[in-house]
Amino acid sequence: MSKPIPAINRYKADLRELNFLLFEQFRLGEILGRGPFEAWGEEEVRTSLAECYRFVREVTGPLNSPADAQGCRLEGGKVITPPGFKEAWKQVYAAGWKGVGISAEYGGAGAPNSLHILVEELLSGSNVAFNMYPGLAYGASELIEVFGTHEQKELYCRRMFDGTWGGTMNLTEPQAGSDVGASTTTAKRNADGSYSIRGTKIFISGGDHDLAENIIHLVLARVEGSPAGTKGLTLFIVPKFRPNPDGSLGKFNDVTCGAIEHKMGINGSSTCVLNYGENDACIGWPVGGEEKINQGMPQMFRMMNGARIAVGIQSISVASTAYLNALEYAKDRKQGASITHWKDATAPRVSIIQHADVRRMLLDMKARVEGIRALAVKLAHHLDMVRVLEDEDAEKAAYHQGQVDLLVPLVKAYGSDQAFRVCELAIQTYGGAGYTRDYPVEQYCRDAKIFSIYEGTNHIQAMDLVGRKLGQAGGANLQAFLGDIAKFVATNSAHPVFGEAVKRVGAAQEALAGSAMKLLTWFQSGHMELVPLNANRFLEMISELTVSALLLEGAILADEKQKTVAAEHPDHAFYEGKKHTALYYARTVLPGVEVKAKQMLEEDRSALDIPDLAFATV
Amino acid sequence: MSKPIPAINRYKADLRELNFLLFEQFRLGEILGRGPFEAWGEEEVRTSLAECYRFVREVTGPLNSPADAQGCRLEGGKVITPPGFKEAWKQVYAAGWKGVGISAEYGGAGAPNSLHILVEELLSGSNVAFNMYPGLAYGASELIEVFGTHEQKELYCRRMFDGTWGGTMNLTEPQAGSDVGASTTTAKRNADGSYSIRGTKIFISGGDHDLAENIIHLVLARVEGSPAGTKGLTLFIVPKFRPNPDGSLGKFNDVTCGAIEHKMGINGSSTCVLNYGENDACIGWPVGGEEKINQGMPQMFRMMNGARIAVGIQSISVASTAYLNALEYAKDRKQGASITHWKDATAPRVSIIQHADVRRMLLDMKARVEGIRALAVKLAHHLDMVRVLEDEDAEKAAYHQGQVDLLVPLVKAYGSDQAFRVCELAIQTYGGAGYTRDYPVEQYCRDAKIFSIYEGTNHIQAMDLVGRKLGQAGGANLQAFLGDIAKFVATNSAHPVFGEAVKRVGAAQEALAGSAMKLLTWFQSGHMELVPLNANRFLEMISELTVSALLLEGAILADEKQKTVAAEHPDHAFYEGKKHTALYYARTVLPGVEVKAKQMLEEDRSALDIPDLAFATV
Repeated sequence: MSKPIPAINRYKADLRELNFLLFEQFRLGEILGRGPFEAWGEEEVRTSLAECYRFVREVTGPLNSPADAQGCRLEGGKVITPPGFKEAWKQVYAAGWKGVGISAEYGGAGAPNSLHILVEELLSGSNVAFNMYPGLAYGASELIEVFGTHEQKELYCRRMFDGTWGGTMNLTEPQAGSDVGASTTTAKRNADGSYSIRGTKIFISGGDHDLAENIIHLVLARVEGSPAGTKGLTLFIVPKFRPNPDGSLGKFNDVTCGAIEHKMGINGSSTCVLNYGENDACIGWPVGGEEKINQGMPQMFRMMNGARIAVGIQSISVASTAYLNALEYAKDRKQGASITHWKDATAPRVSIIQHADVRRMLLDMKARVEGIRALAVKLAHHLDMVRVLEDEDAEKAAYHQGQVDLLVPLVKAYGSDQAFRVCELAIQTYGGAGYTRDYPVEQYCRDAKIFSIYEGTNHIQAMDLVGRKLGQAGGANLQAFLGDIAKFVATNSAHPVFGEAVKRVGAAQEALAGSAMKLLTWFQSGHMELVPLNANRFLEMISELTVSALLLEGAILADEKQKTVAAEHPDHAFYEGKKHTALYYARTVLPGVEVKAKQMLEEDRSALDIPDLAFATV
Repeated sequence: MSKPIPAINRYKADLRELNFLLFEQFRLGEILGRGPFEAWGEEEVRTSLAECYRFVREVTGPLNSPADAQGCRLEGGKVITPPGFKEAWKQVYAAGWKGVGISAEYGGAGAPNSLHILVEELLSGSNVAFNMYPGLAYGASELIEVFGTHEQKELYCRRMFDGTWGGTMNLTEPQAGSDVGASTTTAKRNADGSYSIRGTKIFISGGDHDLAENIIHLVLARVEGSPAGTKGLTLFIVPKFRPNPDGSLGKFNDVTCGAIEHKMGINGSSTCVLNYGENDACIGWPVGGEEKINQGMPQMFRMMNGARIAVGIQSISVASTAYLNALEYAKDRKQGASITHWKDATAPRVSIIQHADVRRMLLDMKARVEGIRALAVKLAHHLDMVRVLEDEDAEKAAYHQGQVDLLVPLVKAYGSDQAFRVCELAIQTYGGAGYTRDYPVEQYCRDAKIFSIYEGTNHIQAMDLVGRKLGQAGGANLQAFLGDIAKFVATNSAHPVFGEAVKRVGAAQEALAGSAMKLLTWFQSGHMELVPLNANRFLEMISELTVSALLLEGAILADEKQKTVAAEHPDHAFYEGKKHTALYYARTVLPGVEVKAKQMLEEDRSALDIPDLAFATV
């Protein structure tokens, strides 16, 4: 393996689309300049996106391919990150990009979540492996901000928010992956109120690195005498170096990196085996103090939304740049004649974007990328509304929080599944060139595969949806959700251009409601085993329904707006694109919802009934 | 990147399934021992498979992961293959595995194609990158065997068949990928009847290597004065070293490897840029002699079937071992409690194969793997019947050849698309572990992506199907094909267990017939542009229909046979598995055919109508 990987920016984003979602479809303008977003105006939001885009194309984007080729190294128990990451870490914090969503109390900008997630899209998309380090520090710090004692917040939060220290989340152990409750890491109380931690955690992203002077690990462990399973887990703050009360660093805390994984992708992100207390000299403190013993899982759950949304954003970010790179290639690359001259060997060669199958792939990618992004911005919109309304209208705020809860598994699981599909199509659009490291799409595809696995596999998401979210608030969240779609259908089913497609959304929604009833019947009639068997399918159905409704909502808006724009204005083409995208998705992807609903009604049990020995004779 | 990749065999195959297809479903026994297969009996076939499996697990299997990690190197213009490849090359030829399908005239075993492709499955599955070197030598030699002059056959065939010399196929150029006719490599006649070759070919698999003393390149080039496009291309024999008439090596023939590609996968296979005649000292000879000038494309086309089938076999081979590895992991890996005890934290942990969603993924992989293999063995069966019948019953032989032609694009394109899907699911079955290089599935996934691209992208396959194969023999091949399925449906639609599923095949077949008519209408009514837009969809539909019919045919057979087998005999479970597999596919995948047929009738033009500028504002 020789050819050096050039450090050039290959990251692309379509800011026009991001701004459309924020200001046109989700009307962010209506909540700016007041309440929690008093400091923010439309111009600030637009400028932030534009500036951040400029930043990532200069700073993190060029490091993406070289970091993939170089990977991380473990030397003398220390992880060395790829060249350039140290400098980028400094720059990203100096420029304030990791502080966009952080409250002013900790030096952040307190921006709406809708802006925060799109800034994260730019950071992740330009270099998903790099952005995991600050991303995890952010998540860990946010957890301490919400659950920590006053002293813990004072000591850790600002330093973790500003990049002085890094942070990680430690759940997985060799025998405890999806089954977190099987964790065997132990915590033993010391006389001074601290706990001695002992155990091994695996798959810890950013578990060690050379970007910050200290790393604050949040570690699930079981205090002696606590019950088995998830109910006996406590979350501990376990720093790599024990900090003194003034924040200066004390002694090494016996946390060592035993190995790093070699992976299919995200090679710039260190994935560590961490050994805690091998020399009995590792101590930690329960997040929130002594009264929070055995509260580790509720704490983690509360924060898991953020982590799962972040994976959804990673998915969108990589899928989007994969699509835009494939689009650029399709415009540049000349190959073959037009189908209308297919028998004439001397016909002029055309750009491959002129070929029907390439256009099909491009539009398919466009629809999926814009669909999953609309899903995420909808979620962020609801989050923003919770903040706006929580003090003035508890009922409305509860509605919005309910929609957030319902959407999280969709954004994570549907987003990541579609991202992989988009990357695959992007490679196919390039042809053989896409399979080589000369172009970025094969890396995108390798990077994207992890999104369906970490922070809860997509099946865990599907079970969260059908086992927890559907029944939440006595089913009211789902009812409100379906009600919103029904309202959209009622309002738009006579639309001259999109009415036909909108009616399909209505039909799909009815089919989905039937499937939700079916799930309930299975729960109640003791056919529990059919629930996990159909959970992924149901998650896909509700996602496709929602995406189709969102794309059509955007298209109807685009159709109106287009009438006010001159044909030669770039917005004219932009709006035109949104119309075709929504129609394509409604005609090509949405019909799957009704098919899957029928399949659920059939209750095919083949996968349950096949004996283990019958899978293969080996 | 450090942890060394251990050289251990991870390749797995289920020989029981291979033998089922050969002897039970496709009744190979009926044509053994007579005519062209006089030398072959059932025992020889079964033993060959068993022996080959033993061989690949010992020789090529252990080299697969290390070769992926190590890749090829280009040193001083020469390609160095990964450690162990040289020795494996010798062993694979010494053991005769590359001679299974070769005629006795050239030292081969003249086996039925159905055995040949399954031996190739074992060779490819154990190490797909390695097997490309002998695979390409085989293809090039077969072409010379069919089209070469007597002298060419004498000089090249045996040496290329026995591994003394390697071989390659050279079509692609920087500006001529899918558009082969845009080739600009030139050939200029010399006084002695040879031609001076000049040009650059890219993406040449095995274009240079250190496995054999010579490499015989087959190169498409345009003789001065020949017409533009594909009609002006001639196929030349261009050796790396010019051979003397006695087969000893003469001087270097001015073919140099300018670079090798760095790729997503198949890293053990060198993918070369080859420069011909940079010093005006590269000569070649037209395959078949002077009268074959401008016959390069028909020659290539005739041989392309073999290359495309080979890619289908690669796809099956990698998908199959991905599935079987995931199955093994699912049986070994303990995680979580049974869904029936989901609220009990102390419930015993179970193997993940006990979880419904894991079973769903396993059965989905099983169905797709067995489905694409059945498709390939059906094709091979027809090829074998052509050989059996060609001298005695031209009409029947033509029927079988027609089915071969129709099936080639299905085996290549549907096979490779499904293989990637299976590899993706295999990773998902492992969870985080599957994303690491500690397990083989992430490599399988990376390797598999190329299958949808090379030897004609899957869209090229789809266009071959709808533009050439459907109308072949005045549509008679398609009619016969649909007739066979109709016969199967008529015979089995009252089956007590599978009747319901068989009726669905019937419904899908009717839908497909309608879609075929639609394609014809588009051709005839000047809506040519709708043909490529729907070609991939149609290929998928006809493949799913065929696979479902084949799986059900196998299941009905298994159902009968199971009644004659004791419950504790391993065959009992094996047959049971085939039943669930066929039902699963008919209920889960087959319904897609009718949906896609409806979509074709809708004639959605979004992808054609969207203006280029509307794809994105970047």
